[in-house]
Amino acid sequence: MQRRKFIQTSALAGTAAFAMPNIIFGAKPDEQKVRLGFIGVGLRGRNHLEMAMYREDVEINAICDIDPDAIAISLKMIKEKGRKEPAVYQKNDHDFENMVKRDDLDGIIIATPWEWHVPMSIATMKAGKYAGVEVSATVTLQESWDLVNTYEKTGSHCMILENVCYRRDVLAVLNMVRQNLFGELIHLQCGYQHDLRGVKFNDGKQAYGGGVEFGAKGFSEAKWRTQHSIDRNGDVYPTHGLGPVAEMIDINRGNRFVSLTSTATKARGLHDYIVKKGGADHPNAKVKFKLGDVVTTVIKCANGETILITHDTNLPRPYSLGFRVQGTEGLWTEDNKSIYLESLSKNHDRWEPFKEYQDKYDHPLWKTHAKDAENAGHGGIDYFVLRAFVESIKRKVAPPIDVYDAAVWSAISPLSELSIAKNSASVEIPDFTRGKWKTNKRIFGLTDEY
Amino acid sequence: MQRRKFIQTSALAGTAAFAMPNIIFGAKPDEQKVRLGFIGVGLRGRNHLEMAMYREDVEINAICDIDPDAIAISLKMIKEKGRKEPAVYQKNDHDFENMVKRDDLDGIIIATPWEWHVPMSIATMKAGKYAGVEVSATVTLQESWDLVNTYEKTGSHCMILENVCYRRDVLAVLNMVRQNLFGELIHLQCGYQHDLRGVKFNDGKQAYGGGVEFGAKGFSEAKWRTQHSIDRNGDVYPTHGLGPVAEMIDINRGNRFVSLTSTATKARGLHDYIVKKGGADHPNAKVKFKLGDVVTTVIKCANGETILITHDTNLPRPYSLGFRVQGTEGLWTEDNKSIYLESLSKNHDRWEPFKEYQDKYDHPLWKTHAKDAENAGHGGIDYFVLRAFVESIKRKVAPPIDVYDAAVWSAISPLSELSIAKNSASVEIPDFTRGKWKTNKRIFGLTDEY
Ligand SMILES: NC(=O)c1ccc[n+]([C@@H]2O[C@H](COP(=O)([O-])OP(=O)(O)OC[C@H]3O[C@@H](n4cnc5c(N)ncnc54)[C@H](O)[C@@H]3O)[C@@H](O)[C@H]2O)c1
Ligand SMILES: NC(=O)c1ccc[n+]([C@@H]2O[C@H](COP(=O)([O-])OP(=O)(O)OC[C@H]3O[C@@H](n4cnc5c(N)ncnc54)[C@H](O)[C@@H]3O)[C@@H](O)[C@H]2O)c1
Repeated sequence: MQRRKFIQTSALAGTAAFAMPNIIFGAKPDEQKVRLGFIGVGLRGRNHLEMAMYREDVEINAICDIDPDAIAISLKMIKEKGRKEPAVYQKNDHDFENMVKRDDLDGIIIATPWEWHVPMSIATMKAGKYAGVEVSATVTLQESWDLVNTYEKTGSHCMILENVCYRRDVLAVLNMVRQNLFGELIHLQCGYQHDLRGVKFNDGKQAYGGGVEFGAKGFSEAKWRTQHSIDRNGDVYPTHGLGPVAEMIDINRGNRFVSLTSTATKARGLHDYIVKKGGADHPNAKVKFKLGDVVTTVIKCANGETILITHDTNLPRPYSLGFRVQGTEGLWTEDNKSIYLESLSKNHDRWEPFKEYQDKYDHPLWKTHAKDAENAGHGGIDYFVLRAFVESIKRKVAPPIDVYDAAVWSAISPLSELSIAKNSASVEIPDFTRGKWKTNKRIFGLTDEY
Repeated sequence: MQRRKFIQTSALAGTAAFAMPNIIFGAKPDEQKVRLGFIGVGLRGRNHLEMAMYREDVEINAICDIDPDAIAISLKMIKEKGRKEPAVYQKNDHDFENMVKRDDLDGIIIATPWEWHVPMSIATMKAGKYAGVEVSATVTLQESWDLVNTYEKTGSHCMILENVCYRRDVLAVLNMVRQNLFGELIHLQCGYQHDLRGVKFNDGKQAYGGGVEFGAKGFSEAKWRTQHSIDRNGDVYPTHGLGPVAEMIDINRGNRFVSLTSTATKARGLHDYIVKKGGADHPNAKVKFKLGDVVTTVIKCANGETILITHDTNLPRPYSLGFRVQGTEGLWTEDNKSIYLESLSKNHDRWEPFKEYQDKYDHPLWKTHAKDAENAGHGGIDYFVLRAFVESIKRKVAPPIDVYDAAVWSAISPLSELSIAKNSASVEIPDFTRGKWKTNKRIFGLTDEY
């Protein structure tokens, strides 16, 4: 219990020591196994479970979910891998509070609906464990403050599990950014452009595009995610795009988001979909969706960069996070898989395929762990994000993506809602680090360790 | 002189009849030649001159420029085509005022620096001639109002010569939009992403990228355009992207721009370029450029669409106007030359090459006139834009792109400057049609005539 003691004692010692992430590169990994618990073993939680079981150095000691099917499927997965049966918490919505108190857990993976992320992360941190929380971490501004305040009070770390930060192309570009190949970064674009109509109206019976039901009659995310499209107008899911570019321009570590504007289109896609699939007389055809089909947000940063984020989940379209990374020396764009760098590109003003650069600037993390990542499945990024969480615990250090990242990346949602509600007014973005962004040092992507 | 009489008499008759563009589709074209004059025969004016001389139905009766070289080259071009020598106006900055009064002109092409567009257009309209003015038409909001007020007082038409509206892909997409293939339009993207460093520091001696001079020592646009990068921070050149998408969503004809926000990055590109090419000690390395390297503007429209415009002219990059046209049925994007339409695309959520659609939905204008357009050179769009101007004159009707388009498309520049100056505040966009957008009918791209 050495490890848990360490965390709890420190927590009692007050906030000062913990305000700075106590990163120690090359800290010696603990020889003991990392003992994980899971809150939420739905579709996403079970991905993490799979990644965890791929690792010899991880024990799964407890799982929690209110859906008996989710528990049953998870227990079956665990059994099939020959792992010992974990304790199960499934009594009610608050049974996770009992689970986090257990003695045999070092970290908790939280993969529940968005509105549960913060209560669960706070309970985890208060119990002296590492919280690994899915995206987005928070729904309201207050929740972002609550996460930060709890970390500063307890000294327990909280990592937002933003897997896209580990995409192979994204990490190669980060590597190039760090080697100054783009020059001084000027403008970034990203987004979440993903036709979620099949997800928002998933009834679990039909293949893509079958259902028109959500809420109690829905399946998986249709149970809860769809309600956010009814209640909220804003970029409700910014972190897949924002996380990676925030790392590239050192947000919270030398730079910060200062202000944003957000503008939403009319809402047509979800209603049209219900009518198309269920007919104009289906009761859900009467539902009013508040979420504009395309939401465009522009962030201004302290160091003078702008970030454009597009949220586009209600219309038919191929998937794209729409990355663009642009500096004084050139730019990379995801959508045409191309790059142009003034000093390196063969032809003046002509795109080059990114492929060559991908191979040449592949990130050390991928170079070292590509094989494991591929064996683990899911394209590798889920392997890496869980790995970072586990390795941080083993080293007793702050995770490479921390509570301040969780707070400010997620805060873009409520701030975008606020801007839209005020006719696209420019709104200030709080500094959750309370000035520490000026002195904080880079963590993410600096090492081949995690 | 029948034609000129008609216009002047009507002008005297007052404003009412002219507030509505008097479009008569299928109006009988005048058998007489269209007699053009040119103010500004620099690089762009001479393009128009070339296009005009390609046409048998056009006479060039006068040219005006303050640069003797521009006049000399133009006279030589005219002579080489075996055309009769035009009258020349070159005495001073205001000699154009003498030219527009001539009896033997029906329309005037204005291709001078931006700050001269409005005085020249107004003089032209007051003299009872059609004004064909280059992009952007106006620099300030007041100038946009001045254009509109002069049109309403004189009844003389003013066309903004936005050639990109005639790009073959753009017109095919417009054709598809009109056939409802994209469903209800929701979101549009466009921009002017063009590395103009070689243009802004063109000394006329070296090939691309040689010079670091501008103003009096500069050549062509370096003489005047660069100064706008010193004095202004905003999207100073929005119409190449905005014109085409404005037509698609019927701006001024059933729809209008309501408000915008604009955000600029820091300014690095131009200074860096001077240092790279001329050294840190070059006097121009001391110049402070106000124009942010990338300016992002988001417009909200009365019918609920949003338009994203990117201005990006100071950094190394391949050229792209970055078009995206997105509706409830799918989207086209320029950068990957691809399209996805839910009802037509072969594979669910997979891009298709646009090529096939280009061939199938080629616009009638291009189908009919592709040969002439190609023979005339410059990729065709300059042929079409001049053709539209000439055919409007022949039919004595409003041009397909009119004074209200010129006013509001160009007004995005000063409004974007205003938003940026106010920390990205949302600013209202004036309704230059004073309510007529509600009843105005579509003109552009409706006919294979012009
Ligand atoms: N990073 C990624 O690529 C990615 C992908 C998918 C989902 N996600 C995120 O993961 C989270 C979960 O998404 P999902 O797709 O697995 O949804 P899901 O609905 O399939 O799973 C959520 C699970 O949480 C359980 N749950 C709800 N309330 C609970 C409570 N009070 N106590 C215990 N369990 C509770 C549900 O019963 C369900 O099994 C979301 O935040 C989502 O945004 C991330
Ligand atoms: N639509 C397009 O694709 C396109 C392309 C290039 C330029 N343009 C536009 O065309 C216009 C001209 O650009 P350019 O590249 O030809 O620049 P340019 O500098 O080569 O030409 C401008 C000409 O105007 C003349 N001029 C300046 N003041 C004058 C005055 N008071 N009276 C008479 N002549 C005067 C100059 O001597 C010069 O010859 C600009 O508005 C530019 O934005 C449009």
